[in-house]
Amino acid sequence: MTTSTFDDVARAARTLEGVARRTPVLTSRSLDAVAGARLSLKAECFQRTGSFKIRGAYNHVSSLDDDVLRRGVVTISSGNHAQAVALAAQLAGTSALILMPLDAPPGKRAATEAYGAEVRTFDRYAEDRDELLAAAAAETGRHVVHAYDDERVIAGQGTVGMELLEEAGELDVLVVCVGGGGLISGCALAAKAMSPGTRVVGVEPEERPAARSALASGGPVKVPVPATLADGQQTANVGRRNHAVMASHVDEVVGVPDAEIVSALRLLFERAKVVVEPSGASALAAVLSGRVAFEPGARVGVTLSGGNVEAARLAKLLA
Amino acid sequence: MTTSTFDDVARAARTLEGVARRTPVLTSRSLDAVAGARLSLKAECFQRTGSFKIRGAYNHVSSLDDDVLRRGVVTISSGNHAQAVALAAQLAGTSALILMPLDAPPGKRAATEAYGAEVRTFDRYAEDRDELLAAAAAETGRHVVHAYDDERVIAGQGTVGMELLEEAGELDVLVVCVGGGGLISGCALAAKAMSPGTRVVGVEPEERPAARSALASGGPVKVPVPATLADGQQTANVGRRNHAVMASHVDEVVGVPDAEIVSALRLLFERAKVVVEPSGASALAAVLSGRVAFEPGARVGVTLSGGNVEAARLAKLLA
Repeated sequence: MTTSTFDDVARAARTLEGVARRTPVLTSRSLDAVAGARLSLKAECFQRTGSFKIRGAYNHVSSLDDDVLRRGVVTISSGNHAQAVALAAQLAGTSALILMPLDAPPGKRAATEAYGAEVRTFDRYAEDRDELLAAAAAETGRHVVHAYDDERVIAGQGTVGMELLEEAGELDVLVVCVGGGGLISGCALAAKAMSPGTRVVGVEPEERPAARSALASGGPVKVPVPATLADGQQTANVGRRNHAVMASHVDEVVGVPDAEIVSALRLLFERAKVVVEPSGASALAAVLSGRVAFEPGARVGVTLSGGNVEAARLAKLLA
Repeated sequence: MTTSTFDDVARAARTLEGVARRTPVLTSRSLDAVAGARLSLKAECFQRTGSFKIRGAYNHVSSLDDDVLRRGVVTISSGNHAQAVALAAQLAGTSALILMPLDAPPGKRAATEAYGAEVRTFDRYAEDRDELLAAAAAETGRHVVHAYDDERVIAGQGTVGMELLEEAGELDVLVVCVGGGGLISGCALAAKAMSPGTRVVGVEPEERPAARSALASGGPVKVPVPATLADGQQTANVGRRNHAVMASHVDEVVGVPDAEIVSALRLLFERAKVVVEPSGASALAAVLSGRVAFEPGARVGVTLSGGNVEAARLAKLLA
């Protein structure tokens, strides 16, 4: 197993020029006052497909040979990687088959289908993702674009951290939400290369200690799929490649309860005027509720990783 | 009566450096597809105080002499100019008295008071704004910072259009929401100076034909205060100075019904991931529903003028 390097991230940045959007870095004095820090919020909710996932998906799919593209691609995803692979396949002129959990947000499924992908559903609480994906690939001959445990995906996601550091300058802390670990492993590669003094902190749902367990025990650990609002962070484990990068490049992972995610969503809505989905607000939630250590006034970079939440669902959460 | 010029706008841009935020210009392929145009959305919802109004208010208040500042400032506003004058006064080290309608959104009132201003309420359906404001100024000796009928305010608001054109380049059409006319008169000065071929189109609520009547009849016309969701556009008339600029610099004003504003709010939320208040979405609403004429694929600049809407209210509108 090889792992990605910062060179891979820098190369991905060139591949993504004109495809992924260079999303804005938001600042907010009122959020700074709540956090006691100078926040730089990388707003990937404004990314194409509504989350950072297009970066890794396109970096992978655009690298494939013609004979692979003729067979098409397949992946498994609760929604954001699904949309990203669907769009990346469309842009590369190939077809995509996406396995999605039955309880994925309907908007994410509709968007995936709108990009022309075929969707098959599964029960995320009963079935093993890796086995399902391997079986679908074997059955169809399609090429697997894994959502996180993949070098080209990690390199693509790392461009989020690279752009954030380019725009915000040196950071004391970079706080990144963790599901399977694609975003944080890529961002950690960028941060430690560009600003070696930056502490990198991951945030996952309190009820899903997969990344914390992996770092504590020296390798990916499968935990029961948690019931959390953060549907993008319900994966049972981080990937092997992600763990390998995290073990050497991530300083700490903390958990955050759903109630604090809802508070962060409300502040983002009312103060920063930005629509973020629950998973995408988990990193900020941990910062705002004091779960990430830093000096008062520290320069803190935070990923807002996606914004794919239907108006009706967010309304209910904020009611 | 003198009117503002583009030089005043350019001077205001320098005054506002480090005070007003240079807000991002958003693009969205899915909104482009709905509009049949290449949209550049100037996102003033991300501005300090949540709307463009801080530009004009600070440009005015920061120009005042010490003896005027000692007496303090006064204004009348449904909410966004209220917050802006409150913050501008705080930044200039003076005090502000704000007259706000009884039915102003509670969040706007709370924010105004949070900036340290004193708020007095009035009945917007029964009382005449200009008379109330003149009486309050006479009674208190405070200096009036009018929300729109004011050269320094017009010049400050014009920096919205200036920044949009700097970032988006030449535009075929610039579409701006109109309440009292401060934003559109400033933006029209910028547009016609920087990109003379740009058509400038104003948008007001269907139920409030104040700007349309003013252009048709050669001067401000007072209309009954309308019941519209767009609380920032409920003023009964455009200002005299605003009309003077609009008559020579604005090509057309169109009306947009509330239902189309709600559709635009939903698209902004679900596709662009941005929280915009009803008044702030009126310009985009008119574009999306075909009320503004342009060639397919035209370069269309649109102001999203503010985002001060509480989560509960937007949830109810989108339910």
